Amino acid sequence: MTRIACAQIDPTIGAVSANLELTAGAIADAVAQGADVVVLPELATSGYMFADADEARSAALSPGGPAFDAWRSAAGGAIVVGGFCELGDDGLLYNSAAVLDADGMIATYRKTHLWDREKLIFTPGAALPSVLKTRHGAIAVMVCYDLEFGEVTRRVALDGAELIVAPVNWPLFPRPEGERPGEVITAMSTARINRVVIAVCDRAGVERDQPWTEGTVIVDPDGWVIAEAGTGAGLAMADVDLSATHDKTLTELVDLFSDRRIDLY
Amino acid sequence: MTRIACAQIDPTIGAVSANLELTAGAIADAVAQGADVVVLPELATSGYMFADADEARSAALSPGGPAFDAWRSAAGGAIVVGGFCELGDDGLLYNSAAVLDADGMIATYRKTHLWDREKLIFTPGAALPSVLKTRHGAIAVMVCYDLEFGEVTRRVALDGAELIVAPVNWPLFPRPEGERPGEVITAMSTARINRVVIAVCDRAGVERDQPWTEGTVIVDPDGWVIAEAGTGAGLAMADVDLSATHDKTLTELVDLFSDRRIDLY
Repeated sequence: MTRIACAQIDPTIGAVSANLELTAGAIADAVAQGADVVVLPELATSGYMFADADEARSAALSPGGPAFDAWRSAAGGAIVVGGFCELGDDGLLYNSAAVLDADGMIATYRKTHLWDREKLIFTPGAALPSVLKTRHGAIAVMVCYDLEFGEVTRRVALDGAELIVAPVNWPLFPRPEGERPGEVITAMSTARINRVVIAVCDRAGVERDQPWTEGTVIVDPDGWVIAEAGTGAGLAMADVDLSATHDKTLTELVDLFSDRRIDLY
Repeated sequence: MTRIACAQIDPTIGAVSANLELTAGAIADAVAQGADVVVLPELATSGYMFADADEARSAALSPGGPAFDAWRSAAGGAIVVGGFCELGDDGLLYNSAAVLDADGMIATYRKTHLWDREKLIFTPGAALPSVLKTRHGAIAVMVCYDLEFGEVTRRVALDGAELIVAPVNWPLFPRPEGERPGEVITAMSTARINRVVIAVCDRAGVERDQPWTEGTVIVDPDGWVIAEAGTGAGLAMADVDLSATHDKTLTELVDLFSDRRIDLY
């Protein structure tokens, strides 16, 4: 079994040092509870609601720099996936996710589908997420709005992803009483039609008048929510059998992948 | 506004004449209540749980034959979409949906993604659904399992579908207390990520020990369920503004279609 933990924290915009301390603490807490995979929100080191690109730049980090030492030190035996504001070698800003363990950075993924005003600040990533073969499973990392594109989620599932991990900052949208957030509904649908596990880490609180959905969820391959962080800061944690995602059949004659009509699309 | 009605009826396996009477009555009832689009379940004229292909063949209809006169007579000013067991000109059996109005057959769609034992009986359709420009909107018709394939739903949405109509027979799967059926969750997600209306007509009852989900729903372009048929036989009806589906933006800088990274997939 693989223990997944999503830390729905509330970083402070621009306060990079404080946010590194907060996130390293959240990682250490999750690892102390036995987590194998620890997920942090999108832009966890910087906050989200930048006034402009200059403000984002002042909170940007290089993935090769020492900023992530605290995450590595806290990681123990876990894989950590967390969002950060990246200053690329090319001098451009990216809305990125770091994937690392105690030994160092495994990969950096740059968000390919930028949401709303992010387009005024960040450069979109040039490559879709790859499937990372880690000690805790085959993991595809995407960031927030990426998850809404079935083109990407299907691609990584076909490429062998057992687990889709997504740091997000979901701005709160209105929804009917009793309904799950729309983004969670899409995560559930994505999990069930691809038979993968999905771990989404949202953030908590309100930032510059923007309330967040606080929609952190872990979804099993049947599409059911098996852990939530709930309201406010908190941890969602669940044990999952990632090998169950290898079987795409529902009956002897139903296989979600081979039933695709690839002759027609 | 367009009034959509889905008639969640309980046909009897093999009883074609009785089922034609039942379905024509359901169409007439919906039209009397002002429906512009009337949807019937999958295989509404024949029932679903065939023992074998011979039994299906004995309940098959030709779309050019007189069997659909009763539907045409009942259609009034509405578009009718209903599932039937088709005997093709080629002598093969198809799990099809008829689309017709008072003037006659508009189109026949043959299910492209066959579910489970359907593969032992039917030939899969050779073409994806096209978008039909009808007097009551741009409609894409698919049948049941087709809806689970984002490749198809995205395609018809990009091709201008305002409304996806799906006759289904959803076999009942277990689900956690308080959750919607997984198939409904996928319909909701499909509606919201494509900003289309989706009308799904399930069937009621139990047939040869197979209980049905009775999951008939109409979903708006935000992904919310605006009408359900509920338990047992019944009608789901809703008025929708199909022109709202033309706008794929969520904010000034978010457009669900142009935000796709077609350079990457």
